[in-house]
Amino acid sequence: MSQTAEDRKGSAGIVQPRTFQHPADFLLKCGATLPGFELVYETYGALNETASNAVLICHALSGNHHAAGYHSADDGKPGWWDACIGPGKPIDTDRFFVVSLNNLGGCHGSTGPLTDNPATGTAWGPDFPTVTVSDWVRSQALLADHLGIERFAAVVGGSLGGMQAMQWAIDEPDRLGAAVLIASAARLSAQNIAFNEIARQAILSDPEFHDGHYRARGRNPDMGLMLARMVGHVTYLSDDGMGRKFGREIKSGDIAQGRNVEFQVESYLHYQGRSFSGRFDANTYLLMTYALDYFDPASEYGNDLVAALSGTTCDFCVISFSTDWRFSPARSREITDALMTARKNVVSCEIESEHGHDSFLLPIGRYFDVLGGYFHRLAEGAGIAR
Amino acid sequence: MSQTAEDRKGSAGIVQPRTFQHPADFLLKCGATLPGFELVYETYGALNETASNAVLICHALSGNHHAAGYHSADDGKPGWWDACIGPGKPIDTDRFFVVSLNNLGGCHGSTGPLTDNPATGTAWGPDFPTVTVSDWVRSQALLADHLGIERFAAVVGGSLGGMQAMQWAIDEPDRLGAAVLIASAARLSAQNIAFNEIARQAILSDPEFHDGHYRARGRNPDMGLMLARMVGHVTYLSDDGMGRKFGREIKSGDIAQGRNVEFQVESYLHYQGRSFSGRFDANTYLLMTYALDYFDPASEYGNDLVAALSGTTCDFCVISFSTDWRFSPARSREITDALMTARKNVVSCEIESEHGHDSFLLPIGRYFDVLGGYFHRLAEGAGIAR
Repeated sequence: MSQTAEDRKGSAGIVQPRTFQHPADFLLKCGATLPGFELVYETYGALNETASNAVLICHALSGNHHAAGYHSADDGKPGWWDACIGPGKPIDTDRFFVVSLNNLGGCHGSTGPLTDNPATGTAWGPDFPTVTVSDWVRSQALLADHLGIERFAAVVGGSLGGMQAMQWAIDEPDRLGAAVLIASAARLSAQNIAFNEIARQAILSDPEFHDGHYRARGRNPDMGLMLARMVGHVTYLSDDGMGRKFGREIKSGDIAQGRNVEFQVESYLHYQGRSFSGRFDANTYLLMTYALDYFDPASEYGNDLVAALSGTTCDFCVISFSTDWRFSPARSREITDALMTARKNVVSCEIESEHGHDSFLLPIGRYFDVLGGYFHRLAEGAGIAR
Repeated sequence: MSQTAEDRKGSAGIVQPRTFQHPADFLLKCGATLPGFELVYETYGALNETASNAVLICHALSGNHHAAGYHSADDGKPGWWDACIGPGKPIDTDRFFVVSLNNLGGCHGSTGPLTDNPATGTAWGPDFPTVTVSDWVRSQALLADHLGIERFAAVVGGSLGGMQAMQWAIDEPDRLGAAVLIASAARLSAQNIAFNEIARQAILSDPEFHDGHYRARGRNPDMGLMLARMVGHVTYLSDDGMGRKFGREIKSGDIAQGRNVEFQVESYLHYQGRSFSGRFDANTYLLMTYALDYFDPASEYGNDLVAALSGTTCDFCVISFSTDWRFSPARSREITDALMTARKNVVSCEIESEHGHDSFLLPIGRYFDVLGGYFHRLAEGAGIAR
């Protein structure tokens, strides 16, 4: 559905992805070395003279660099966080210069399983090395160097993106003014790891996965990816939210006879799952879930989150959502408590929402008020003009 | 691990499954007719002279007839609800005559996908007709006739078993004194249907499923069943319970390098999933999940649960568990509220437990106190002697 100019009021406008090339060896935490890499990124707004107004957006499991705006005049679908980023929006591009990238290991143009391994001349596929949140932070810092950004006004992310913002605060304390952690956690719970493992097993056991070499054979593990996405979808929503959206509404079949019934919720999940299979790479999905599972900054500080956060110097904003049960408010409270104990400047907020984990992507009034207010204060405090 | 006689104090002892044969046609709700059927069942305790002390146990998704006792002197594993059924236990076999069966469509000896279709001489497999909770109640009533039980003192079940107890109260009001609904619901939520559909898709998409004709080909959809069981396991436990049981404990690999890590929770789920694949039939799994999804007695009364329950005459006991998020306390409260509104005699209780939906299978102190107390009162009220 194409949109009119009027609909695009407040839009970041038409944006073009660009590519950053890092030409040198890049040693990963797992011990492997990448012979250079590329990151695809977009920017919205303008960098000011002192380069003090930059904001980095970190994406979540299935995200990419296209966070805001449109790719062409007749592009009907804006970026994934368009509601939040643009002129006059919570992350106001009239004030801030916003950078959004596709992470290393991603499947939207950055170096990852779909790109060629220079050593072999064929796509990395399953041989692309394990990437951790720390590796992402280092690669993002190199992108910042390239863009002339010594220090971000803020690093922002939801879910896995929030983990990157936290790791930025730990690994690069001098290079950010604020870390905004939305619907995130200091580490996954056993339940979260379990759901990720179900998704992985669905992909790994798909006979079209071919040990990760599906592309070389012209195949794709569609069913595995579909199942993985279905698990994601169900767990990113709340029970009540799903109840209100779908209830027990029946799409086809005869409930009175108990025969061949398809509920609306099943039809929706099938559609979403199939659509995802067509646009996301299975090896990247696996890589992203491992990065989620392995993230645990406290593990390097004797499992003491306070100690892990003690060297940070930025301000923190921690936001959670009432019905989010994969990254519950309790997980955000753990972060806030540790930051308070470590005597850091932290504001935190639990937003009422029926939309579960997905809330962080949605334009929920109070959420956007809080986020917009925080960025306004950041801008005022740093003397960032409109 | 075999157990000594001392360990078996309070045990229902060594029990032998028996088979009930219903020789006549049996019309199912879906419109199909079974040319007779068999039900495998066990009994514990003795039927009194007036046949007033019978209790029916209805099993859940993956249950069977072997609820209590042992199958031989060196059998190390008792029935699935052995903690609850036996001399001096909450369902006291010194007072009650307990009947437990494998439901129609099951895979533990009762007529189902694994048994032969007389019309073809080969196993029913995927052609076994859809069975609803109402069909189970009618088949269980025929078993009761066979055993000389005109009226059960109580019909009891957890989860899908509780749905059968509720349907008994609606369909056979003169044939039970009490319905005990544990960790159950008047109908599944959209989220529950969604989890069932993920499990089904995992089975249906396993290339070894062969449209349900896996046995005829000497194959089995092991991976699909394993995934289905993993989804079940994760959702039957609570986040906190899993956290306390597994945390982020690592079985193998190197978290510091973020490489090849296997968490304990993953190892546990793989083991449980594989074990389940070896003992449960995929067609039965599908059939059971459909029965769960389709159960909705209110749907035949204009979606009014009060109206659906208005014709019941038995007493009710409704029990739920604090951390059960698949059959949450709120779902049990809906049942209790409807029963109260319909002016029925209902007691209800929410038990504190960290074990999620699995709680209904576990010997939790207050739970067993409540259940034992209820059965004691039932026995006293009905003049059932020890």
